[in-house]
Amino acid sequence: MKDAFLKACQGIRPSYTPVWFMRQAGRYMPEYQKIRQKYDFLTMCKTPEIAAEVTLQPVKILNVDAAILFSDILIPLEAMGLKIDFIDKGPEVSPVIRTGFDLKNLKEFDLSAVDFVFETIKILIKELDVPLIGFSASPFTLATYVIEGGSSKDFVNTKRFIFSEPQNFHRLMETLTEATTKYLIEQINAGVHAVQIFDTWAGILSPFDYGIFCKPYLEKILKQISMSVPLIYYCSNTSGLLNQIKDLEFDVFSLDWRVDIKDACFYLNYRPIQGNLDPLVLLGREDEILKRVKNVLIDGNSAKSHIFNLGHGVNINTNVDVLKKVVDFIHEFRFEEV
Amino acid sequence: MKDAFLKACQGIRPSYTPVWFMRQAGRYMPEYQKIRQKYDFLTMCKTPEIAAEVTLQPVKILNVDAAILFSDILIPLEAMGLKIDFIDKGPEVSPVIRTGFDLKNLKEFDLSAVDFVFETIKILIKELDVPLIGFSASPFTLATYVIEGGSSKDFVNTKRFIFSEPQNFHRLMETLTEATTKYLIEQINAGVHAVQIFDTWAGILSPFDYGIFCKPYLEKILKQISMSVPLIYYCSNTSGLLNQIKDLEFDVFSLDWRVDIKDACFYLNYRPIQGNLDPLVLLGREDEILKRVKNVLIDGNSAKSHIFNLGHGVNINTNVDVLKKVVDFIHEFRFEEV
Repeated sequence: MKDAFLKACQGIRPSYTPVWFMRQAGRYMPEYQKIRQKYDFLTMCKTPEIAAEVTLQPVKILNVDAAILFSDILIPLEAMGLKIDFIDKGPEVSPVIRTGFDLKNLKEFDLSAVDFVFETIKILIKELDVPLIGFSASPFTLATYVIEGGSSKDFVNTKRFIFSEPQNFHRLMETLTEATTKYLIEQINAGVHAVQIFDTWAGILSPFDYGIFCKPYLEKILKQISMSVPLIYYCSNTSGLLNQIKDLEFDVFSLDWRVDIKDACFYLNYRPIQGNLDPLVLLGREDEILKRVKNVLIDGNSAKSHIFNLGHGVNINTNVDVLKKVVDFIHEFRFEEV
Repeated sequence: MKDAFLKACQGIRPSYTPVWFMRQAGRYMPEYQKIRQKYDFLTMCKTPEIAAEVTLQPVKILNVDAAILFSDILIPLEAMGLKIDFIDKGPEVSPVIRTGFDLKNLKEFDLSAVDFVFETIKILIKELDVPLIGFSASPFTLATYVIEGGSSKDFVNTKRFIFSEPQNFHRLMETLTEATTKYLIEQINAGVHAVQIFDTWAGILSPFDYGIFCKPYLEKILKQISMSVPLIYYCSNTSGLLNQIKDLEFDVFSLDWRVDIKDACFYLNYRPIQGNLDPLVLLGREDEILKRVKNVLIDGNSAKSHIFNLGHGVNINTNVDVLKKVVDFIHEFRFEEV
């Protein structure tokens, strides 16, 4: 198995910078669209053969150094008694949980209800020649979906819950943390080589409130998960939270594009970094793209080790050939030539 | 005239921390709604007597230490030949400018077309017993509206323009910078006591691209505007950009809630700070609100001087009595008691 990605996770610098892309299996890819035309998104997630096929596509086509399980961060919510749906304008979760009273709607996490995830993993580890990354949302990010009933512009309901009923919000977080921990451990048991926690929405909190309502639950997960595989933490809108995030014992910190890797390294004590090209740079001119890819590579050299990635998922308008060119450029790049 | 706000702008600490709120004149206030029921938003902006009345409302009702001109950041676009409209789902600008070819739709800024703004200012400076803040969007933030035709979730069109036609994007920025400069100078001539530049969307850029596509135009404005009144810079999602922002010679830096004032002070060399309570904290329980107001006051004490504000505009669901209580709490707060 190609080991550049796992080496970098462990703080070792392989001979070239490993690269994969968040949402590398997705709608921007014609091969994905072909399958998506036959099945709805949730069916794709729940059918191990299809989920495995879609996971493999970008590995073959783009030549990336890691695969990420094709699934969705909301999948565990179904195993907690909520209904999830994916419509054009985004994901929907029901019923919403906005008060302590609503907490009764959230059932204990039933691992067997997401068995298809572990089946997909078992298929993939036989097929892949690169490491497989499992994942879940952070408890806080899951909480925002449960409270808002989907995505949100300003997260009014989440904030109202937090600041009106902080104790009940903590109860919600306890339940979601327990589920997330079980879910990640079972993915590791099924064979994933690394896991990434997506904290897509923690960036809506002030550093003070991140410290109260988000961080303790990540610490709880870190304490309970076997450290046999690298744990990656992705938080969008990280920059203001770095002084909090630095205390978390993740192996790799995945940064969004709105922070300078060099600034982040200062806070994170030069630990392994993943990231952080602005995904929308890829919609631009080739010279502008490659200039910025090179910048990220050079910035990444400040860290103990660096895994190239985007600061957010691949945008649907991205051209596959552009991504291929970026992967080749990264693989061929050597620091001595800078 | 009460001078606590202007003193703080100059780096002097008055006997109490001055406070005002972004979007303090707005829909959360019943007195505002009463007028809004009779006139549409644009008519309110364009009628000096109404705009002045609405500007005065929060000063009288909340007892804040500064007034901010009631207007909208998109107003100057009409004086450049574009059509602006305010519908339920947000502002609309047309025609959109997405290529170098489209630049012809942007006319030279016609000061006389926004004379109502300067008339409003002239009425207000006679009426007010607190300083009046004028404002404009930053050229970059204006550019996003011109390109997207309104607000946006991910600013795909803006990024595509920037990274596909960087030279043409710079041409757009030149035109918008010239307009913004003229607009601010004329507000100062009409009598405002301070001006704030709203860079609501600069936070979508990486620090590298902020340095290329946003910062040089702010430097240009700073060079051309008479420094006779304090200049405040508000940038949302500031944290990752502080290492760039620190070079800008604004008098006051207004921070959003996603950054710790103490961290920001380190980058900004302890210059005057404005901000930065999460506006949605105000939807919570009184004890949770006042705990965080106090935190912000204590954090603000790290800076040379501090003007209390929110990290973003007042949310429509905010209760006026809560805001009153917050203003009183801030005015009565003394550091020796901490």
